[in-house]
Amino acid sequence: MKPLSPQDQMFLLLERRNQPMHVGGLQLARPPKDAGPDYTQKVADFMRSHTKACAPFNLRLERKLGAPFWVEDEEFDIESHFRHLALPKPGRIRELLALVSQLHSAHLDRAKPLWEFYLIDGLEDGRIAIYSKIHHALVDGIAAMRMMMRATSETPEEQNIPVWAMPPRKRELVPGEDRPRSFISVVGEAAGMLGQQAKTLPNVTRELYRSIRAARSNPDYVSVFQAPKSILNQRITGSRRFAAQSWSLERIRAAGRKHDATLNDVVLAMCGSALRSYLKELGELPDKPLTSMVPMSLRRDDSDSGNQVAMILANLYTSIEDPVERLHAIQRSVQTSKDRFQNMSQAEIVNYMAATMAPFSLNYATGAAPRWQAFNVTISNVPGPKNKLYWNGAELEGMYPVSIVIDGQALNITLNSYADKLEFGLIACRRTLPHMQRLLDYLEQGLAELEA
Amino acid sequence: MKPLSPQDQMFLLLERRNQPMHVGGLQLARPPKDAGPDYTQKVADFMRSHTKACAPFNLRLERKLGAPFWVEDEEFDIESHFRHLALPKPGRIRELLALVSQLHSAHLDRAKPLWEFYLIDGLEDGRIAIYSKIHHALVDGIAAMRMMMRATSETPEEQNIPVWAMPPRKRELVPGEDRPRSFISVVGEAAGMLGQQAKTLPNVTRELYRSIRAARSNPDYVSVFQAPKSILNQRITGSRRFAAQSWSLERIRAAGRKHDATLNDVVLAMCGSALRSYLKELGELPDKPLTSMVPMSLRRDDSDSGNQVAMILANLYTSIEDPVERLHAIQRSVQTSKDRFQNMSQAEIVNYMAATMAPFSLNYATGAAPRWQAFNVTISNVPGPKNKLYWNGAELEGMYPVSIVIDGQALNITLNSYADKLEFGLIACRRTLPHMQRLLDYLEQGLAELEA
Repeated sequence: MKPLSPQDQMFLLLERRNQPMHVGGLQLARPPKDAGPDYTQKVADFMRSHTKACAPFNLRLERKLGAPFWVEDEEFDIESHFRHLALPKPGRIRELLALVSQLHSAHLDRAKPLWEFYLIDGLEDGRIAIYSKIHHALVDGIAAMRMMMRATSETPEEQNIPVWAMPPRKRELVPGEDRPRSFISVVGEAAGMLGQQAKTLPNVTRELYRSIRAARSNPDYVSVFQAPKSILNQRITGSRRFAAQSWSLERIRAAGRKHDATLNDVVLAMCGSALRSYLKELGELPDKPLTSMVPMSLRRDDSDSGNQVAMILANLYTSIEDPVERLHAIQRSVQTSKDRFQNMSQAEIVNYMAATMAPFSLNYATGAAPRWQAFNVTISNVPGPKNKLYWNGAELEGMYPVSIVIDGQALNITLNSYADKLEFGLIACRRTLPHMQRLLDYLEQGLAELEA
Repeated sequence: MKPLSPQDQMFLLLERRNQPMHVGGLQLARPPKDAGPDYTQKVADFMRSHTKACAPFNLRLERKLGAPFWVEDEEFDIESHFRHLALPKPGRIRELLALVSQLHSAHLDRAKPLWEFYLIDGLEDGRIAIYSKIHHALVDGIAAMRMMMRATSETPEEQNIPVWAMPPRKRELVPGEDRPRSFISVVGEAAGMLGQQAKTLPNVTRELYRSIRAARSNPDYVSVFQAPKSILNQRITGSRRFAAQSWSLERIRAAGRKHDATLNDVVLAMCGSALRSYLKELGELPDKPLTSMVPMSLRRDDSDSGNQVAMILANLYTSIEDPVERLHAIQRSVQTSKDRFQNMSQAEIVNYMAATMAPFSLNYATGAAPRWQAFNVTISNVPGPKNKLYWNGAELEGMYPVSIVIDGQALNITLNSYADKLEFGLIACRRTLPHMQRLLDYLEQGLAELEA
């Protein structure tokens, strides 16, 4: 029995009817050429035969004296976590995304370990899909990506033990301990700090006002005061729409070379362009440019240890019509933010973020803070595998993150690299953002503009 | 906003990780001959187009000052309740029952209205399946059956509005009001009474001891003292196995005519024979005969009003080897129980049942009562439709109840008549009762024995 860390607790506290706090992933895999008609059935039987789960997949929540603990689930039943389903005909990607949207909308059952794994048959093109979800109190997005990679291999010959049956690597798997931080983790931690330790509030408030003063004295950097109101920033419902698409890394890099911009700059420009087109079509484009929260690695060397992930606020310049001009404005915005962090220690960065995110976090933790809009949308780029991966002989052709949206942040764009592609996963509140899937076309258009 | 009745609350209080309290139904339907390949897709679109739900399908739970209320769900989203899935290949009944077992094991999400409806494609024989579940706090089994019947028609020409979109009939649909009582309702009510109003405890206890004295003075009637311990009567886990099969009513009636027994007698004899074979194979057959709780209509005329449903305790005589001898012993046991009720008023019946069920109920409500075993298994016969039914043009070929098991009652046999068949739905804790589906073969054997 292990008490939950404040950060893990935060994800449980943040969870509401309209706001489930699990992260997910969707993979598309091409069965091997010599696969028989019972290929997925055999894979499913192999998966199901792993009836024991390792940490954290064997942990369920229990409350003792009002505090939540992780306890080992003595009645763990793989049938409650692994499901083999098929898409109804015609089995297009459309039906798959509709199913994933539904599955991702549903809360995990808190009486059981907080994860589910779906093997999905019936795609018309013969591929299979894997959708998995796990509560953010158990792992963050980066750890989930690592676990997923461990459950695959770089050659088609291997049989892959399911992720829940693999003994944990301490660093990525033990809830409550230190681990790489994703966007949500850091915000959650800040909010947790604020919500739980009222005495830290004055410090954070002081930091916040420092940030406000800095924003006033230097109009070049994006602060809490530059996020306009938009339809992206409303209360959400529990309805989700998921959309996903792959883009060639080489295409994006080529567009970057053409305009002397990094891959990240081009990605932000694609998002800025897409959001501009989408909001314009709805008649909802704010005059002031939208801003985005972008988790970014600040690592100064190539060492694997000591992740320095920070959140920068990047202006998306959705107010600028010309795509190239927009790209360059975004570039400058990103550079300004990065420069600031280069001169800060890790501790200073965390402090700064706690301050910048304070209104956002306080809204959640207490409902008491003014409803300032710190930023309009999160655009998260999770580093993914460099090589082609295989899962029980099937080549993984795509892997898309399925993230979280929260009140005030009705859209989340998360992407990961995979081999020679960049995989975009868009999740949104279906009711707040109608026809969100059109953003996929607008993202393509945003890239094409820079290639033209 | 409506407070929950004590009975409805009881179903929420009884709900635990290992004991979800929803009832379900499985229907098998044959699409019309002229159905195109997109038939189910069209039906699914039609279902989904009904985005508004009527009572009770629009009600969700809310707690105010510690008490639960039904409130209208203002964020009702049909995507959270209706799903169109397919079975993975090969799409046999086996895969269907495995899927239904999984779906029935999962708790309903208490943040949303407590029901789900699945349209399932991909059966190898071209049929479609419908599995639906609804919380017992919202409806009981009989009301659920009525609702299902209203959502079908007797001719294939009609399009059927989904059950959630039909305006309620007061009698069957308004939670908390008086309605026909199923087994669980009555027990729940008794337990609710006991748990909630401590002052009624002495009365009930007195009734119980009267019942005990009666049992001592008349060894012919089944009382709480005659239920032997058995593997059916253990603590259960949350894992479920569902098994279902149809038998011809005419076959069962013919067997009854041959032995001068009623249809119900033959059903109980089939169950007794099946349980004997099943437990014998496991080396778990108790020396003393198993007893069953059987809800039975006590209506003395054909009027539709004033249901008099009572629970009788019928001995299944699993100790007797000869099938015909066993049938006659069961007949006598049923007749004794029925005779008792014939001489009692409705109030006396409820009193008597509260007393007989007291140990059972008290175990649940308080955990304080001695762990007497009132009976070993529930065998419930719900009256079903007399004529063939159609659902959006598809002929309903089978409809099976998917009921509830609880701690101490690891198996539930519920059946309903439908046109010229009797449809058995068996639900059990998969871990307490291994290979439960073998009971289907043993039920067939139990009928064949009486035909021989």
